[in-house]
Amino acid sequence: MMDHTQPPKVTVDEMNAFIGGHFGGASNACEHMAFGEAVAVMHPSPEMLRPGKIISGPTVFSICDAALFYAALSCTSMEPMTLTSEMSIRFLRPARGEVIRARATIHTLAGRNVVGTVEAWTDDPAKPVAVAQGTYVRPKQA
Amino acid sequence: MMDHTQPPKVTVDEMNAFIGGHFGGASNACEHMAFGEAVAVMHPSPEMLRPGKIISGPTVFSICDAALFYAALSCTSMEPMTLTSEMSIRFLRPARGEVIRARATIHTLAGRNVVGTVEAWTDDPAKPVAVAQGTYVRPKQA
Amino acid sequence: MMDHTQPPKVTVDEMNAFIGGHFGGASNACEHMAFGEAVAVMHPSPEMLRPGKIISGPTVFSICDAALFYAALSCTSMEPMTLTSEMSIRFLRPARGEVIRARATIHTLAGRNVVGTVEAWTDDPAKPVAVAQGTYVRPKQA
Amino acid sequence: MMDHTQPPKVTVDEMNAFIGGHFGGASNACEHMAFGEAVAVMHPSPEMLRPGKIISGPTVFSICDAALFYAALSCTSMEPMTLTSEMSIRFLRPARGEVIRARATIHTLAGRNVVGTVEAWTDDPAKPVAVAQGTYVRPKQA
Repeated sequence: MMDHTQPPKVTVDEMNAFIGGHFGGASNACEHMAFGEAVAVMHPSPEMLRPGKIISGPTVFSICDAALFYAALSCTSMEPMTLTSEMSIRFLRPARGEVIRARATIHTLAGRNVVGTVEAWTDDPAKPVAVAQGTYVRPKQA
Repeated sequence: MMDHTQPPKVTVDEMNAFIGGHFGGASNACEHMAFGEAVAVMHPSPEMLRPGKIISGPTVFSICDAALFYAALSCTSMEPMTLTSEMSIRFLRPARGEVIRARATIHTLAGRNVVGTVEAWTDDPAKPVAVAQGTYVRPKQA
Repeated sequence: MMDHTQPPKVTVDEMNAFIGGHFGGASNACEHMAFGEAVAVMHPSPEMLRPGKIISGPTVFSICDAALFYAALSCTSMEPMTLTSEMSIRFLRPARGEVIRARATIHTLAGRNVVGTVEAWTDDPAKPVAVAQGTYVRPKQA
Repeated sequence: MMDHTQPPKVTVDEMNAFIGGHFGGASNACEHMAFGEAVAVMHPSPEMLRPGKIISGPTVFSICDAALFYAALSCTSMEPMTLTSEMSIRFLRPARGEVIRARATIHTLAGRNVVGTVEAWTDDPAKPVAVAQGTYVRPKQA
């Protein structure tokens, strides 16, 4: 794991200003940034719910993906063309709740790859609804 | 791989009637069903696009997830509480285009697990934008 | 999927000569090569078995990894420094049998990435013991 | 994450006694157990090395898989029929060194599923050679 006590290279405000501008329909926000760590938060809209008011799988994936993006930028700086290369996700419990959060932690920067692990939860952080792990690839440096 | 020449246990019309009723905001449709195989199609809305008109990663994930759900039901019958257990996805190219499709193929039913592989593409089926593999779990039988 | 009717860029004999020379302890062999497709075969030794004579998970992983390596080279040519970048595997049934095989199929070459899907089986190809999907990365071209 | 300050339900000595007895050819050992956390260690033999003295990918997978097994038992008790259901692994750097270790951390027990994240390293824990995430399934309770 990385040294998460360093200051993040992108702040919460910078992150939210960026996604507000570029991702007009961003349905989530950045709630926390440390070096190599970030939390994303989302209030799902009705079309993101399945029967039984369960937050849909792709919605859970999207909040995990967002958190990992924020965490990647927290240790590289604002590089918007950092793109998801691959991600695997495990769904653990029905995701019921008014709000869903995901915390991503970066393991390492290796070459252009940024690899991290994510936990998502609704009401109870001790009962994650999903965990994920994936790779973001940084843009080629000029 | 399975024998995809058998008739599917759920038809395209049955599948679309189901998601139209239960997933009010379904942004995709089922386009093809064979036994153990299905194609899902989606016309992304503007909020699903990233800078450069690239279809967002979670949107690509969602069409893969939908195709795998349809393919799972094609060989088990209409069991709506069949849920994603885990999925891994590889993003291969920027997903540019007005429409995105995903074809899922089931490898096997093993106990309650249904495991399949998915390819997603936009304009050119020979150049997939993503491939995925995952597991759906069938509901406990009464 | 790719056009598997083209001739492979590496033959079965070339593949086996290579792994015999470089992977002295290679416990598997290449049995089939087509363009973008390969089969690897292994006769597990006693230390690869778990209680109940089940072939161990890492052994199953290794045969899937080998098949994907062969399939990658079948469409790129003999590039020994092609390395596994990531792989995900699903174990479907206890792997009982005297021999295990894995068939890998390449989806696409995208930049330096070669992505494929693998099925492994022992006695009955219709009942795979595992399926996997992963990415090999080609060496940088001079 | 779980409360790793509780005592583990299986000790290091119990774990090593078990794998010594059942996995005669066990090429790794358990080095550390806490509740929901374990470290496995291995001294690779020559046939596990690739050209350049790089520890092979399947060997790295095997140490990750072992660590996750130990960590799973650390919070469930000695249940030998706990089996890998699925695992995804990312290879980050060439694995050079005389010894390789993997640390697994359990996120949660959800039903019969035990899900955890693993980091593997050789000389420098700050530079992991691989990270993985996977699911073990506990045996059905009588």
